[in-house]
Amino acid sequence: MAAVNSVTDSGAGCPAIILVEPQLGENIGMAARAMANFGLSELRLVAPRDGWPNPAAVAAAAGATALLDKAKVYPSTAAAVADLHCVLATSARSRGQMKRVLAPDAAMADLALRSRAGQGTGILFGRERTGLENDDISLCDALVTFPVDPAFASLNLAQAVLLVGYEWTRASRGLALPFEANPATPPASRASLIGLFEHLEAELEAAAFYPPDKKPVMARNMRDMFHRMGPTEQDVRTWRGAIRALAELRRTRKA
Amino acid sequence: MAAVNSVTDSGAGCPAIILVEPQLGENIGMAARAMANFGLSELRLVAPRDGWPNPAAVAAAAGATALLDKAKVYPSTAAAVADLHCVLATSARSRGQMKRVLAPDAAMADLALRSRAGQGTGILFGRERTGLENDDISLCDALVTFPVDPAFASLNLAQAVLLVGYEWTRASRGLALPFEANPATPPASRASLIGLFEHLEAELEAAAFYPPDKKPVMARNMRDMFHRMGPTEQDVRTWRGAIRALAELRRTRKA
Repeated sequence: MAAVNSVTDSGAGCPAIILVEPQLGENIGMAARAMANFGLSELRLVAPRDGWPNPAAVAAAAGATALLDKAKVYPSTAAAVADLHCVLATSARSRGQMKRVLAPDAAMADLALRSRAGQGTGILFGRERTGLENDDISLCDALVTFPVDPAFASLNLAQAVLLVGYEWTRASRGLALPFEANPATPPASRASLIGLFEHLEAELEAAAFYPPDKKPVMARNMRDMFHRMGPTEQDVRTWRGAIRALAELRRTRKA
Repeated sequence: MAAVNSVTDSGAGCPAIILVEPQLGENIGMAARAMANFGLSELRLVAPRDGWPNPAAVAAAAGATALLDKAKVYPSTAAAVADLHCVLATSARSRGQMKRVLAPDAAMADLALRSRAGQGTGILFGRERTGLENDDISLCDALVTFPVDPAFASLNLAQAVLLVGYEWTRASRGLALPFEANPATPPASRASLIGLFEHLEAELEAAAFYPPDKKPVMARNMRDMFHRMGPTEQDVRTWRGAIRALAELRRTRKA
């Protein structure tokens, strides 16, 4: 897993998300929110239908407004990609042009390498209803498409941006999760586990739990259950207390 | 890449998406749409706030209404998971419980294996504002969380469902894209390419293009450019025509 890349972290060096003639401000805002979820920070808009800035975008961005404030507006797709070195086009269908077709993970792995080499990269997303035009596609190095069910292939704009952002995070930063399993108590040492097993098995033997000759296999099976459980030191203490309590109860009842 | 799994295709055998006390019908509908995008078909609702059916869900589902019609409603999370063998809980934060924490790809790889073995599986998604409660989490085998930017970690419900669906598709069906690169003409054979190279180099030599002693290295560089281009048979014909046209023009101008 790659170390966190400081260039990526600051947002410089991540691919530009380029929305070509987006129609609804709400979709622009939701796309910005999806970008922010995965650390993408550069939004470019080509001739947004309802002008810019757009209050509907702000309302839908759920707080990702810094990203909207920084968005740049361009009159044409060619102008929006002029400073970039590699541009991909998202598309839900084959376009008749001889372009490589990449899945999102392969596409973002390629952009992450280029970004580390200092290249400017970007991804085009088309109009909500009609997608990208052939002249937009012609400006691009390759197509990106999503492994959707062909019977229900329509992803909305923000969802397409979300999947690209998710794969960008995986490609550029590894799969750093926001939290790990609770580290409050460490996993039990093998010695603690063996102590627990011997305690349990001695008490079960005293309780005549094992049928004749069955103890070895039954004990191994119960040890396997505990290993699958992956107990912590605290868990071992809890079980030893529970075994003591049950054994004590049994002795009291017999007395 | 795994062959398409007919069990998965029919929707039987995919994990149930279980929304616990969802508040807005719109979010239920958008979650259904995201499920349909990635071939998930079993939606379960635990005590939806506004009752069921819900017209707002239908409006937001963008056509994924069969999935809403089939949705089952349960009075409690325990009832919704009773028939399942493995249940995961999505969570944006550590919950203080000793649960394994899985990234979406690892989580769906595990569920795909269990599904192939005939186990019933499901994934819990919490209320929009407050997520899952500790008693919901306690019903689950492990947590799933997303590699979001901790500074902007809030994924909406449908987006979380979308990422789970995307990884389910990857794990259960491989990364089958809805279309491939345009296969209209096959890639050029090596013989066609060598014919093109020799034609081009002969004409460039006749045009005195190569400085003295530079032909071998310049020819290799140009051959490399064509190899990077990955031309088709049709592309080779186009280039040979262009070279003929330019060479003819040069001869005409000299005459």
